[in-house]
Amino acid sequence: MIDRVDDKRAVVLLSGGLDSATVLAQARAAGYRPYALSLAYGQRHSAELRAAARVAAALGAFEHKVIELDLRAIGGSALTDSSIAVPETPSDGIPVTYVPARNTVFLSLALGWAEVLDARDIFVGVNAVDYSGYPDCRPAFIDAFEKLANLATKVGVEQGGLRIHAPLIEMSKADIIRAGTALGVDYALTVSCYAADDQGRACGRCDSCRLRAQGFTDAGIADPTRYREDR
Amino acid sequence: MIDRVDDKRAVVLLSGGLDSATVLAQARAAGYRPYALSLAYGQRHSAELRAAARVAAALGAFEHKVIELDLRAIGGSALTDSSIAVPETPSDGIPVTYVPARNTVFLSLALGWAEVLDARDIFVGVNAVDYSGYPDCRPAFIDAFEKLANLATKVGVEQGGLRIHAPLIEMSKADIIRAGTALGVDYALTVSCYAADDQGRACGRCDSCRLRAQGFTDAGIADPTRYREDR
Repeated sequence: MIDRVDDKRAVVLLSGGLDSATVLAQARAAGYRPYALSLAYGQRHSAELRAAARVAAALGAFEHKVIELDLRAIGGSALTDSSIAVPETPSDGIPVTYVPARNTVFLSLALGWAEVLDARDIFVGVNAVDYSGYPDCRPAFIDAFEKLANLATKVGVEQGGLRIHAPLIEMSKADIIRAGTALGVDYALTVSCYAADDQGRACGRCDSCRLRAQGFTDAGIADPTRYREDR
Repeated sequence: MIDRVDDKRAVVLLSGGLDSATVLAQARAAGYRPYALSLAYGQRHSAELRAAARVAAALGAFEHKVIELDLRAIGGSALTDSSIAVPETPSDGIPVTYVPARNTVFLSLALGWAEVLDARDIFVGVNAVDYSGYPDCRPAFIDAFEKLANLATKVGVEQGGLRIHAPLIEMSKADIIRAGTALGVDYALTVSCYAADDQGRACGRCDSCRLRAQGFTDAGIADPTRYREDR
Protein backbone atom coordinates (compact mmCIF):
# COMPACT_ATOMS: atom_id res chain seq x y z
CA MET A 1 0.00 0.00 0.00
CA ILE A 2 1.43 3.34 -1.05
CA ASP A 3 0.97 6.04 1.59
CA ARG A 4 1.67 9.07 -0.55
CA VAL A 5 -1.44 11.21 -0.83
CA ASP A 6 -1.15 14.49 -2.70
CA ASP A 7 -3.92 16.82 -3.82
CA LYS A 8 -4.79 14.99 -7.03
CA ARG A 9 -8.39 14.44 -6.05
CA ALA A 10 -10.52 11.60 -7.35
CA VAL A 11 -14.08 10.50 -6.65
CA VAL A 12 -14.29 6.74 -6.14
CA LEU A 13 -17.65 4.99 -6.26
CA LEU A 14 -17.62 2.61 -3.32
CA SER A 15 -20.33 0.00 -2.83
CA GLY A 16 -18.72 -1.96 -0.03
CA GLY A 17 -18.18 -4.93 -2.31
CA LEU A 18 -14.99 -6.61 -3.40
CA ASP A 19 -14.58 -4.78 -6.70
CA SER A 20 -14.95 -1.19 -5.55
CA ALA A 21 -12.70 -1.80 -2.53
CA THR A 22 -10.01 -2.90 -4.97
CA VAL A 23 -10.55 0.22 -7.07
CA LEU A 24 -10.23 2.48 -4.02
CA ALA A 25 -6.89 0.83 -3.23
CA GLN A 26 -5.80 1.27 -6.85
CA ALA A 27 -6.73 4.96 -6.89
CA ARG A 28 -4.77 5.58 -3.72
CA ALA A 29 -1.79 3.58 -4.97
CA ALA A 30 -1.81 5.72 -8.14
CA GLY A 31 -1.34 8.83 -6.00
CA TYR A 32 -4.88 10.15 -5.92
CA ARG A 33 -6.54 11.62 -2.86
CA PRO A 34 -9.69 9.48 -2.88
CA TYR A 35 -13.15 10.83 -2.05
CA ALA A 36 -15.38 7.79 -1.63
CA LEU A 37 -19.04 8.02 -2.66
CA SER A 38 -21.69 5.47 -1.71
CA LEU A 39 -25.32 5.48 -2.65
CA ALA A 40 -28.04 4.42 -0.23
CA TYR A 41 -30.44 3.38 -2.96
CA GLY A 42 -32.94 1.25 -1.12
CA GLN A 43 -30.91 -1.84 -1.83
CA ARG A 44 -31.69 -5.01 0.03
CA HIS A 45 -28.06 -5.50 0.92
CA SER A 46 -27.71 -2.45 3.18
CA ALA A 47 -24.94 -4.37 4.94
CA GLU A 48 -22.92 -3.21 1.95
CA LEU A 49 -23.13 0.39 3.17
CA ARG A 50 -21.67 -0.49 6.54
CA ALA A 51 -18.98 -2.40 4.68
CA ALA A 52 -18.33 0.69 2.55
CA ALA A 53 -17.70 2.77 5.66
CA ARG A 54 -15.25 0.17 7.00
CA VAL A 55 -13.47 -0.07 3.65
CA ALA A 56 -13.25 3.72 3.25
CA ALA A 57 -11.61 4.02 6.66
CA ALA A 58 -9.28 1.06 6.18
CA LEU A 59 -8.08 2.15 2.75
CA GLY A 60 -7.51 5.82 3.55
CA ALA A 61 -10.37 7.60 1.79
CA PHE A 62 -10.05 11.31 2.51
CA GLU A 63 -13.81 11.58 2.92
CA HIS A 64 -16.72 9.13 2.63
CA LYS A 65 -20.04 10.54 1.52
CA VAL A 66 -23.33 8.65 1.38
CA ILE A 67 -26.12 10.04 -0.79
CA GLU A 68 -29.67 8.89 -0.22
CA LEU A 69 -31.51 7.99 -3.41
CA ASP A 70 -34.49 5.71 -3.19
CA LEU A 71 -34.46 3.70 -6.41
CA ARG A 72 -37.36 1.65 -5.04
CA ALA A 73 -39.50 4.46 -6.47
CA ILE A 74 -38.47 3.22 -9.92
CA GLY A 75 -38.38 -0.52 -9.12
CA GLY A 76 -37.68 -3.05 -11.84
CA SER A 77 -34.89 -4.98 -10.09
CA ALA A 78 -34.57 -7.77 -7.58
CA LEU A 79 -32.10 -5.54 -5.72
CA THR A 80 -34.56 -2.72 -5.09
CA ASP A 81 -37.98 -4.34 -5.46
CA SER A 82 -38.87 -6.80 -2.72
CA SER A 83 -41.51 -8.42 -4.94
CA ILE A 84 -38.78 -9.79 -7.26
CA ALA A 85 -36.82 -12.76 -5.88
CA VAL A 86 -33.01 -12.82 -5.96
CA PRO A 87 -32.13 -15.85 -8.14
CA GLU A 88 -29.76 -18.57 -6.98
CA THR A 89 -28.77 -19.72 -10.44
CA PRO A 90 -27.28 -17.65 -13.27
CA SER A 91 -29.70 -16.60 -15.98
CA ASP A 92 -29.24 -15.98 -19.69
CA GLY A 93 -29.30 -12.35 -20.85
CA ILE A 94 -29.72 -9.44 -18.47
CA PRO A 95 -30.35 -10.71 -14.93
CA VAL A 96 -33.18 -9.50 -12.69
CA THR A 97 -30.57 -8.14 -10.30
CA TYR A 98 -29.79 -5.49 -12.93
CA VAL A 99 -30.84 -2.10 -11.53
CA PRO A 100 -32.15 0.12 -14.34
CA ALA A 101 -29.57 2.72 -15.36
CA ARG A 102 -27.72 2.25 -12.09
CA ASN A 103 -24.21 3.00 -13.26
CA THR A 104 -25.44 5.98 -15.27
CA VAL A 105 -27.12 7.39 -12.17
CA PHE A 106 -24.16 6.65 -9.89
CA LEU A 107 -21.58 8.08 -12.29
CA SER A 108 -23.76 11.19 -12.69
CA LEU A 109 -23.72 11.79 -8.96
CA ALA A 110 -19.98 11.14 -8.85
CA LEU A 111 -19.64 13.70 -11.62
CA GLY A 112 -21.60 16.27 -9.62
CA TRP A 113 -19.37 15.77 -6.59
CA ALA A 114 -16.26 15.86 -8.78
CA GLU A 115 -17.35 19.28 -10.03
CA VAL A 116 -17.73 20.60 -6.52
CA LEU A 117 -14.35 19.15 -5.49
CA ASP A 118 -12.67 20.32 -8.71
CA ALA A 119 -11.62 16.71 -9.24
CA ARG A 120 -10.88 15.52 -12.77
CA ASP A 121 -10.92 11.80 -12.10
CA ILE A 122 -13.69 9.36 -11.28
CA PHE A 123 -13.06 5.70 -10.47
CA VAL A 124 -15.68 3.00 -10.81
CA GLY A 125 -15.43 -0.75 -10.29
CA VAL A 126 -17.49 -1.92 -13.25
CA ASN A 127 -16.48 -5.23 -14.74
CA ALA A 128 -17.40 -6.55 -18.17
CA VAL A 129 -16.23 -10.11 -17.55
CA ASP A 130 -18.38 -11.25 -14.64
CA TYR A 131 -21.28 -8.92 -15.42
CA SER A 132 -21.44 -9.48 -19.16
CA GLY A 133 -25.24 -9.26 -19.04
CA TYR A 134 -25.25 -5.68 -17.69
CA PRO A 135 -25.20 -3.12 -20.53
CA ASP A 136 -23.72 -0.43 -18.28
CA CYS A 137 -20.63 -2.51 -17.43
CA ARG A 138 -19.06 -2.46 -20.90
CA PRO A 139 -16.12 -0.36 -22.13
CA ALA A 140 -18.33 1.37 -24.73
CA PHE A 141 -20.57 2.61 -21.92
CA ILE A 142 -17.63 4.00 -19.95
CA ASP A 143 -16.26 5.74 -23.05
CA ALA A 144 -19.66 7.29 -23.77
CA PHE A 145 -19.99 8.48 -20.19
CA GLU A 146 -16.56 10.09 -20.32
CA LYS A 147 -17.54 11.98 -23.48
CA LEU A 148 -20.75 13.09 -21.80
CA ALA A 149 -18.91 14.20 -18.67
CA ASN A 150 -16.69 16.51 -20.69
CA LEU A 151 -19.72 18.14 -22.29
CA ALA A 152 -21.89 18.25 -19.17
CA THR A 153 -19.78 20.10 -16.67
CA LYS A 154 -17.90 23.29 -15.92
CA VAL A 155 -14.67 21.33 -15.44
CA GLY A 156 -15.09 19.46 -18.70
CA VAL A 157 -16.13 22.43 -20.81
CA GLU A 158 -13.75 25.03 -19.41
CA GLN A 159 -10.69 22.86 -18.74
CA GLY A 160 -11.35 19.44 -20.30
CA GLY A 161 -9.70 16.25 -19.28
CA LEU A 162 -12.34 14.66 -17.08
CA ARG A 163 -11.54 10.97 -16.99
CA ILE A 164 -13.62 7.96 -16.01
CA HIS A 165 -11.33 5.18 -14.78
CA ALA A 166 -12.67 1.62 -14.83
CA PRO A 167 -9.49 -0.32 -14.03
CA LEU A 168 -11.27 -3.64 -13.47
CA ILE A 169 -13.31 -3.63 -16.64
CA GLU A 170 -11.42 -6.41 -18.44
CA MET A 171 -10.15 -8.28 -15.36
CA SER A 172 -11.31 -11.66 -14.11
CA LYS A 173 -12.48 -11.92 -10.51
CA ALA A 174 -9.32 -13.87 -9.67
CA ASP A 175 -7.13 -11.12 -11.16
CA ILE A 176 -9.05 -8.48 -9.20
CA ILE A 177 -8.53 -10.42 -5.96
CA ARG A 178 -4.82 -10.84 -6.70
CA ALA A 179 -4.42 -7.12 -7.47
CA GLY A 180 -6.27 -6.02 -4.34
CA THR A 181 -4.42 -8.47 -2.13
CA ALA A 182 -1.13 -7.09 -3.42
CA LEU A 183 -2.33 -3.60 -2.42
CA GLY A 184 -3.27 -4.74 1.09
CA VAL A 185 -7.05 -4.88 0.71
CA ASP A 186 -8.67 -6.87 3.52
CA TYR A 187 -11.55 -8.55 1.72
CA ALA A 188 -13.03 -9.70 5.03
CA LEU A 189 -14.28 -6.11 5.34
CA THR A 190 -16.21 -6.28 2.08
CA VAL A 191 -19.70 -7.60 1.35
CA SER A 192 -20.67 -8.80 -2.13
CA CYS A 193 -23.75 -10.90 -1.32
CA TYR A 194 -27.11 -9.76 -2.69
CA ALA A 195 -28.82 -11.19 0.38
CA ALA A 196 -26.36 -10.58 3.23
CA ASP A 197 -27.75 -10.53 6.75
CA ASP A 198 -27.52 -7.58 9.14
CA GLN A 199 -24.03 -8.62 10.20
CA GLY A 200 -22.89 -8.65 6.59
CA ARG A 201 -22.67 -12.44 6.46
CA ALA A 202 -23.10 -13.83 2.96
CA CYS A 203 -25.69 -16.37 1.74
CA GLY A 204 -23.16 -18.29 -0.35
CA ARG A 205 -25.80 -19.08 -2.94
CA CYS A 206 -26.60 -15.97 -5.01
CA ASP A 207 -24.82 -15.17 -8.29
CA SER A 208 -22.61 -12.63 -6.58
CA CYS A 209 -21.53 -15.07 -3.83
CA ARG A 210 -20.74 -17.76 -6.40
CA LEU A 211 -18.62 -15.44 -8.54
CA ARG A 212 -16.74 -14.21 -5.50
CA ALA A 213 -16.04 -17.66 -4.06
CA GLN A 214 -14.87 -18.92 -7.46
CA GLY A 215 -12.58 -15.90 -7.70
CA PHE A 216 -10.78 -16.77 -4.48
CA THR A 217 -10.49 -20.40 -5.59
CA ASP A 218 -9.10 -19.40 -9.00
CA ALA A 219 -6.67 -16.91 -7.41
CA GLY A 220 -5.42 -19.53 -4.97
CA ILE A 221 -6.12 -17.18 -2.07
CA ALA A 222 -8.00 -18.22 1.07
CA ASP A 223 -11.58 -16.87 1.04
CA PRO A 224 -12.07 -14.62 4.10
CA THR A 225 -15.80 -14.16 3.44
CA ARG A 226 -18.04 -14.58 6.48
CA TYR A 227 -20.98 -16.82 5.58
CA ARG A 228 -24.34 -17.23 7.30
CA GLU A 229 -24.77 -20.37 9.35
CA ASP A 230 -27.79 -21.44 7.26
CA ARG A 231 -25.63 -21.40 4.15
CA MET B 1 -55.10 20.39 -26.42
CA ILE B 2 -55.10 17.00 -28.10
CA ASP B 3 -56.84 14.37 -26.01
CA ARG B 4 -55.61 11.27 -27.84
CA VAL B 5 -53.51 9.16 -25.53
CA ASP B 6 -52.25 5.84 -26.85
CA ASP B 7 -49.66 3.54 -25.34
CA LYS B 8 -46.62 5.32 -26.75
CA ARG B 9 -45.10 5.95 -23.35
CA ALA B 10 -42.71 8.79 -22.60
CA VAL B 11 -41.00 9.94 -19.43
CA VAL B 12 -41.22 13.73 -19.05
CA LEU B 13 -38.98 15.53 -16.56
CA LEU B 14 -41.25 17.99 -14.81
CA SER B 15 -39.89 20.65 -12.47
CA GLY B 16 -43.07 22.66 -12.02
CA GLY B 17 -41.57 25.56 -13.96
CA LEU B 18 -42.72 27.15 -17.18
CA ASP B 19 -40.44 25.23 -19.52
CA SER B 20 -41.14 21.68 -18.39
CA ALA B 21 -44.91 22.35 -18.27
CA THR B 22 -44.68 23.34 -21.92
CA VAL B 23 -42.76 20.17 -22.73
CA LEU B 24 -45.37 18.01 -21.00
CA ALA B 25 -48.07 19.62 -23.13
CA GLN B 26 -45.95 19.07 -26.26
CA ALA B 27 -45.37 15.39 -25.43
CA ARG B 28 -49.07 14.82 -24.93
CA ALA B 29 -49.96 16.76 -28.10
CA ALA B 30 -47.52 14.53 -30.01
CA GLY B 31 -49.50 11.48 -28.95
CA TYR B 32 -47.36 10.19 -26.10
CA ARG B 33 -48.70 8.84 -22.86
CA PRO B 34 -46.68 11.02 -20.49
CA TYR B 35 -45.17 9.75 -17.24
CA ALA B 36 -44.04 12.83 -15.34
CA LEU B 37 -40.95 12.62 -13.14
CA SER B 38 -39.97 15.22 -10.56
CA LEU B 39 -36.94 15.24 -8.32
CA ALA B 40 -37.07 16.43 -4.72
CA TYR B 41 -33.44 17.42 -4.64
CA GLY B 42 -33.24 19.62 -1.58
CA GLN B 43 -33.91 22.67 -3.69
CA ARG B 44 -34.85 25.90 -1.98
CA HIS B 45 -37.82 26.36 -4.26
CA SER B 46 -39.82 23.38 -3.04
CA ALA B 47 -42.92 25.30 -4.13
CA GLU B 48 -41.90 24.02 -7.56
CA LEU B 49 -42.75 20.48 -6.52
CA ARG B 50 -46.28 21.42 -5.55
CA ALA B 51 -46.53 23.24 -8.85
CA ALA B 52 -45.32 20.09 -10.61
CA ALA B 53 -48.18 18.08 -9.08
CA ARG B 54 -50.71 20.69 -10.22
CA VAL B 55 -49.24 20.81 -13.71
CA ALA B 56 -49.12 17.01 -14.02
CA ALA B 57 -52.81 16.79 -13.14
CA ALA B 58 -53.87 19.70 -15.32
CA LEU B 59 -51.99 18.49 -18.39
CA GLY B 60 -53.00 14.85 -18.21
CA ALA B 61 -49.87 13.04 -17.06
CA PHE B 62 -50.67 9.35 -16.76
CA GLU B 63 -48.60 9.14 -13.58
CA HIS B 64 -46.53 11.62 -11.57
CA LYS B 65 -43.59 10.22 -9.66
CA VAL B 66 -41.38 12.16 -7.25
CA ILE B 67 -37.94 10.75 -6.41
CA GLU B 68 -36.12 11.98 -3.32
CA LEU B 69 -32.47 12.81 -3.95
CA ASP B 70 -30.73 15.13 -1.57
CA LEU B 71 -28.22 17.04 -3.67
CA ARG B 72 -27.42 19.18 -0.62
CA ALA B 73 -25.00 16.36 0.21
CA ILE B 74 -22.97 17.50 -2.79
CA GLY B 75 -23.56 21.24 -2.45
CA GLY B 76 -21.87 23.70 -4.78
CA SER B 77 -24.95 25.62 -5.92
CA ALA B 78 -27.06 28.51 -4.65
CA LEU B 79 -30.10 26.31 -5.34
CA THR B 80 -29.08 23.54 -2.95
CA ASP B 81 -26.60 25.19 -0.59
CA SER B 82 -28.10 27.74 1.77
CA SER B 83 -24.68 29.33 2.36
CA ILE B 84 -24.61 30.59 -1.25
CA ALA B 85 -26.89 33.57 -1.99
CA VAL B 86 -29.23 33.58 -5.01
CA PRO B 87 -28.05 36.52 -7.14
CA GLU B 88 -30.40 39.25 -8.34
CA THR B 89 -28.30 40.28 -11.34
CA PRO B 90 -27.07 38.09 -14.19
CA SER B 91 -23.45 37.01 -13.98
CA ASP B 92 -20.89 36.27 -16.66
CA GLY B 93 -20.01 32.63 -17.23
CA ILE B 94 -21.64 29.80 -15.35
CA PRO B 95 -24.00 31.18 -12.66
CA VAL B 96 -23.95 30.07 -9.02
CA THR B 97 -27.48 28.75 -9.49
CA TYR B 98 -25.98 26.00 -11.67
CA VAL B 99 -26.45 22.66 -9.89
CA PRO B 100 -23.48 20.35 -10.56
CA ALA B 101 -24.36 17.70 -13.15
CA ARG B 102 -28.07 18.27 -12.53
CA ASN B 103 -29.38 17.42 -15.98
CA THR B 104 -27.08 14.41 -16.20
CA VAL B 105 -28.46 13.10 -12.91
CA PHE B 106 -32.08 13.87 -13.79
CA LEU B 107 -31.85 12.33 -17.25
CA SER B 108 -30.22 9.24 -15.73
CA LEU B 109 -33.15 8.76 -13.39
CA ALA B 110 -35.58 9.35 -16.24
CA LEU B 111 -33.67 6.70 -18.16
CA GLY B 112 -34.03 4.24 -15.31
CA TRP B 113 -37.78 4.78 -15.14
CA ALA B 114 -38.05 4.57 -18.94
CA GLU B 115 -36.42 1.13 -18.77
CA VAL B 116 -38.94 -0.08 -16.22
CA LEU B 117 -41.84 1.35 -18.24
CA ASP B 118 -40.42 0.06 -21.53
CA ALA B 119 -40.63 3.64 -22.79
CA ARG B 120 -38.33 4.71 -25.64
CA ASP B 121 -38.78 8.45 -25.29
CA ILE B 122 -37.65 10.96 -22.69
CA PHE B 123 -38.62 14.62 -22.78
CA VAL B 124 -36.68 17.36 -21.03
CA GLY B 125 -37.16 21.13 -21.01
CA VAL B 126 -33.57 22.23 -21.32
CA ASN B 127 -32.98 25.49 -23.13
CA ALA B 128 -29.73 26.71 -24.62
CA VAL B 129 -30.91 30.28 -25.24
CA ASP B 130 -31.79 31.53 -21.78
CA TYR B 131 -29.35 29.25 -19.97
CA SER B 132 -26.35 29.70 -22.20
CA GLY B 133 -24.05 29.52 -19.19
CA TYR B 134 -25.14 25.99 -18.23
CA PRO B 135 -23.03 23.35 -19.97
CA ASP B 136 -25.75 20.72 -19.63
CA CYS B 137 -28.32 22.77 -21.55
CA ARG B 138 -26.63 22.57 -24.94
CA PRO B 139 -27.55 20.40 -27.95
CA ALA B 140 -24.17 18.63 -27.82
CA PHE B 141 -24.96 17.50 -24.28
CA ILE B 142 -28.36 16.13 -25.26
CA ASP B 143 -26.84 14.27 -28.24
CA ALA B 144 -24.16 12.76 -26.01
CA PHE B 145 -26.74 11.67 -23.46
CA GLU B 146 -28.83 10.01 -26.16
CA LYS B 147 -25.79 8.05 -27.33
CA LEU B 148 -25.07 7.03 -23.75
CA ALA B 149 -28.68 5.99 -23.17
CA ASN B 150 -28.54 3.59 -26.10
CA LEU B 151 -25.40 1.96 -24.68
CA ALA B 152 -26.47 1.97 -21.04
CA THR B 153 -29.79 0.18 -21.05
CA LYS B 154 -31.58 -3.02 -21.95
CA VAL B 155 -33.95 -1.12 -24.21
CA GLY B 156 -31.13 0.67 -25.99
CA VAL B 157 -28.86 -2.34 -26.43
CA GLU B 158 -31.50 -4.92 -27.30
CA GLN B 159 -33.90 -2.81 -29.32
CA GLY B 160 -32.25 0.59 -29.89
CA GLY B 161 -34.04 3.78 -30.63
CA LEU B 162 -34.06 5.48 -27.25
CA ARG B 163 -34.59 9.16 -27.90
CA ILE B 164 -34.02 12.24 -25.77
CA HIS B 165 -36.37 15.01 -26.85
CA ALA B 166 -35.44 18.58 -25.95
CA PRO B 167 -38.03 20.49 -27.95
CA LEU B 168 -37.30 23.87 -26.33
CA ILE B 169 -33.56 23.77 -26.74
CA GLU B 170 -33.31 26.47 -29.43
CA MET B 171 -36.47 28.43 -28.54
CA SER B 172 -36.65 31.84 -26.93
CA LYS B 173 -38.70 32.23 -23.75
CA ALA B 174 -41.34 34.15 -25.74
CA ASP B 175 -41.59 31.33 -28.30
CA ILE B 176 -41.95 28.77 -25.49
CA ILE B 177 -44.75 30.79 -23.92
CA ARG B 178 -46.52 31.15 -27.26
CA ALA B 179 -46.22 27.41 -27.95
CA GLY B 180 -47.50 26.42 -24.51
CA THR B 181 -50.35 28.90 -24.62
CA ALA B 182 -51.45 27.46 -27.96
CA LEU B 183 -51.52 24.02 -26.30
CA GLY B 184 -53.62 25.26 -23.38
CA VAL B 185 -50.94 25.44 -20.69
CA ASP B 186 -52.08 27.52 -17.72
CA TYR B 187 -48.84 29.19 -16.67
CA ALA B 188 -50.45 30.47 -13.48
CA LEU B 189 -49.96 26.89 -12.21
CA THR B 190 -46.20 27.01 -12.76
CA VAL B 191 -43.42 28.37 -10.54
CA SER B 192 -40.07 29.46 -12.01
CA CYS B 193 -38.74 31.63 -9.19
CA TYR B 194 -35.56 30.51 -7.43
CA ALA B 195 -36.87 32.03 -4.20
CA ALA B 196 -40.63 31.47 -4.30
CA ASP B 197 -42.49 31.55 -0.99
CA ASP B 198 -44.52 28.66 0.42
CA GLN B 199 -47.54 29.69 -1.64
CA GLY B 200 -45.45 29.59 -4.82
CA ARG B 201 -45.43 33.37 -5.19
CA ALA B 202 -42.42 34.68 -7.07
CA CYS B 203 -39.81 37.20 -5.92
CA GLY B 204 -39.77 39.05 -9.24
CA ARG B 205 -36.07 39.79 -8.86
CA CYS B 206 -34.01 36.64 -9.46
CA ASP B 207 -32.59 35.72 -12.88
CA SER B 208 -35.36 33.20 -13.43
CA CYS B 209 -38.13 35.70 -12.62
CA ARG B 210 -36.59 38.30 -14.93
CA LEU B 211 -36.30 35.89 -17.85
CA ARG B 212 -39.87 34.72 -17.35
CA ALA B 213 -41.38 38.20 -17.10
CA GLN B 214 -39.47 39.34 -20.18
CA GLY B 215 -40.76 36.28 -22.03
CA PHE B 216 -44.39 37.21 -21.42
CA THR B 217 -43.67 40.81 -22.45
CA ASP B 218 -41.91 39.68 -25.64
CA ALA B 219 -44.70 37.22 -26.45
CA GLY B 220 -47.35 39.91 -25.97
CA ILE B 221 -49.20 37.63 -23.54
CA ALA B 222 -50.43 38.78 -20.12
CA ASP B 223 -48.16 37.50 -17.32
CA PRO B 224 -50.25 35.33 -14.95
CA THR B 225 -47.39 34.90 -12.45
CA ARG B 226 -48.33 35.45 -8.81
CA TYR B 227 -45.76 37.70 -7.15
CA ARG B 228 -44.95 38.22 -3.49
CA GLU B 229 -46.22 41.42 -1.93
CA ASP B 230 -42.70 42.45 -0.93
CA ARG B 231 -41.63 42.30 -4.56
